Formats: sequence, C-alpha cells, structure tokens
Amino acid sequence: MHLMNLEKENYYLEQEYLSDIELYYSQKISGDNIELSGDESKHAARVMRHIIGDKLHVTDGQGNYFQTLISEISDNSISARIQNRKNYKNDLENIIFCFPRLKSNDRFEFEIEKSIELGITNFVIFNSSRTIPKGEKLERWNKIALAAMKQSLRTYLPNIKYLNSFEKIKSFEGNKIILEQKGNDSIINFLRLVKDKLLSEKFYFIFGPEGGLSQNELNLISDCKKLTLTPNRLRAETAVIATATVISLL
Amino acid sequence: MHLMNLEKENYYLEQEYLSDIELYYSQKISGDNIELSGDESKHAARVMRHIIGDKLHVTDGQGNYFQTLISEISDNSISARIQNRKNYKNDLENIIFCFPRLKSNDRFEFEIEKSIELGITNFVIFNSSRTIPKGEKLERWNKIALAAMKQSLRTYLPNIKYLNSFEKIKSFEGNKIILEQKGNDSIINFLRLVKDKLLSEKFYFIFGPEGGLSQNELNLISDCKKLTLTPNRLRAETAVIATATVISLL
Repeated sequence: MHLMNLEKENYYLEQEYLSDIELYYSQKISGDNIELSGDESKHAARVMRHIIGDKLHVTDGQGNYFQTLISEISDNSISARIQNRKNYKNDLENIIFCFPRLKSNDRFEFEIEKSIELGITNFVIFNSSRTIPKGEKLERWNKIALAAMKQSLRTYLPNIKYLNSFEKIKSFEGNKIILEQKGNDSIINFLRLVKDKLLSEKFYFIFGPEGGLSQNELNLISDCKKLTLTPNRLRAETAVIATATVISLL
Repeated sequence: MHLMNLEKENYYLEQEYLSDIELYYSQKISGDNIELSGDESKHAARVMRHIIGDKLHVTDGQGNYFQTLISEISDNSISARIQNRKNYKNDLENIIFCFPRLKSNDRFEFEIEKSIELGITNFVIFNSSRTIPKGEKLERWNKIALAAMKQSLRTYLPNIKYLNSFEKIKSFEGNKIILEQKGNDSIINFLRLVKDKLLSEKFYFIFGPEGGLSQNELNLISDCKKLTLTPNRLRAETAVIATATVISLL
C-alpha cells in the first residue's frame, strides 16, 4: 500500500524530493494511455505549468500507481503515456470507521482528513440522536478524501457512505468495536490479538459525537466490543485520529 | 498523571458520568480554601449555574487535583472548601515538542490542542525560514492550552515558549529528534529503547512547517536523531498529532 517504497527508489535515482511529488488521480486508462481531466488536468497544466514530456505521478484510486510522461495537453485534458506501473495492496480494506457529523464542521472534516492520511479507506457517516448537523455532504467529503489520498501519496480513494439511521449499524456483519473511556480492554491489546484476522473479517470502529452516543443507541449495538484508548478524556475527533494512528502503526 | 484513575472510583461511587465532569483551574489556594476568579468563576456561576454546596473539580495546573464544595459565590469569584486532594506525576515532563506556526492557523491551533489532549505539556514554537506567519500569539496559545488541559481532565497546565530564532534550538541540552519520512529508525522502536531515560533526560521532538525545514536549518541541528513515523507523507500537523498519540500510549 505504501507508494513511498517505490518512490524511495526514485528518490535516490533522481534526487527528487519526496515532499515535492504531486500525485494525480484518473480512472481514464486505456492500454498505455492515461487521461487527466477536470481539476486534475487544470492543476497539472495551469497551476504546476507542466509541459509535454514532463513526468506525472498518477493513481486510479483503486490501488494502482502509474509513472507517466505527458504526451498531449489540450484545454481540458492531458494525455500521458504510462512508463511504469505498480499495484499496491490495501492492508486496511476491512477496517471501517463509523462516526457522526460533529457540531463543529471543522473538527469533523479534520477527522476525515487525518484518518485518510493515516490510511483508513472506509467510512460510514451516520446520524445520531445527539448529532446536531444531520444529513449528508458527500460531494464535499469526497473532495476532502481525494485531496487527503493525494497528499499522503496513497493509491486507494476512500469510500464514504452515509447512513441516515443509526439503527442500520446493527445489521452490519463483522466485528463491532466501540471506543469509550470505560472500555474493558485497550485497543492496542485488541489489535495485537486480531491482527491476523484483519485480512479476512470486517472491523467496524464506532465513535460517538461530542456528547457521546445516547443510551438508546448504545443498547442497539450492545454486542459491540468496548475498548479504551487512553484513560484521559479525548474529544470526539481526537479519539478518531488517535485510533487511526494506532491502526496505521500495526 | 491520569486524573481518570481517581475519577473512576468516584464514578462507581456516585454514578456520575466521566464525560460530564467539568474541571476548573485556579492557583489561589490557601489552606483548605480555593478561590476561582475571572472566566473560571464566571463559567461555574453563570454558565453552569452552580450554587453554594455544589461540588467543583479544580486543578492548580501543577499536578494537583482538588475535589471541593462551593462555600461562597460573589460577583467575580467563587470560594470553595477542599474535601479531597491528590497529586499526579507528569510522566511526560521531559518531552518537549518544538514546531513552527503553520500557514494555516487552524491547523496550527489544532496540533497544539490535540498534543495537549494526548498529554504533551511542553512546547517550543519557533520561527523557521519557510514559516509564513511569524511572531508569537502566546496569550491565544495559552488559552487553547488551558481549555485542552481541562477538556482532557489533566492537571498540568502546558508550558509554551516562543523562540524567535531557530538557531537557539542548537543550544538545547538533551536528546534532539527530528521526524522525517527518510528517517533511519522508527519512532516506536526508539521510544521503546529510551523509555527508561524519559524520567531523567530531556527529549526534544522537532517538526518542520508545511514545506519542511530548510537545508540551512537542518544543518544547524545535524546532531539530531532522524526518526520516521510512517512511510506515508503526512501533513505537518498530522505528524505532530500522530507522534503525540504514540507517546501517550507508551
């Protein structure tokens, strides 16, 4: 999954700074040709002022990385020829983060962005009784997801689903984990124990809003494993980001 | 250091939800009497509408926690009698996070807040050549620090220093660690190795701004240990928060 491993070789070969790499996104691939359109093409041509012959790093958001050379630039698209390709595995494909929108939209968007930078690729955003902003903004969230994937040089475009009723979480099949201060085991111990199962079973990590899930909601998911992160009280978004960190270091 | 350990006992005794606890801050303590003033007193009396006889949880920000009962409420202050006190150790007192302001003030304030929630208590904010907003806003930063300490139910008020020249970091005595993608050891391995030294030696964790530290700055601290967190590229504030998470779980 780590694009860096490939990039590291390039780094030594070409003296190119890793931090300067721009990753582009396109699903328009046919044979050895890849086409960038929309914002991706605009950014490469107008902001980065790339010209024919320049190297572009591209991902299809489905695990594939392409090293390409620009062969054509038009008003709204860029064609590039694939020189090199590599497929990455998504080690965290069975991990799903489930959390509600937060009162503070900034904090909510921050927790999505940080989780993605740290490698989480599946999200379920739900309405909970104590959540104040309801409803979905999937277009905006997907934009944040795309930017965070490119920023962290990852090759999996995160999948964000919206659930208008918390009750549906009950029917999800797999391991359900709820993070709370009074959890009866530490998440680190738990992850060590289940590490081998991560490739074959689904793991739903469920987080509450600022005031926590309501008792009714907790009753609905009473089969959840209750885990704790630290003995200190963490804000809703901090618990999400810290859990993503722990998972990213597995 | 974890106030929770004490609170947990209270929890079972009094059926009080941990997440509902409000922690107040005061350094005006004489004998068994503690006085809240300013915003702390206003919040307790006007927002939370506490009355004489109510229980208040207070910290002096220097490791002490006090369980008190309100004995007097006046316009600008509250007096409370200490019923119970406990001193906590700061396990992370020798850990100092050094980072510059970021182009995005939101991201910068977020990294301070999250680091504090996760237990970091010492900060050095420096000017670096690629940092865009220069200068200090210590009053604002200390306000964020106080809120984050209370939010996470901690008893150490973080210490934030401002350094107008990066060069001064050179003269800091202790272990200096710089987090970078191309680091030659993982921070987890490093922390495991030095865990016993955390109580006797200082550890400075140095982070760069969005574009990284300049080569000149890196040369100034060439004696730094270079560690890596994950092979993926993380934003400046994500590296800080993820490092704080790892340290908090030591």
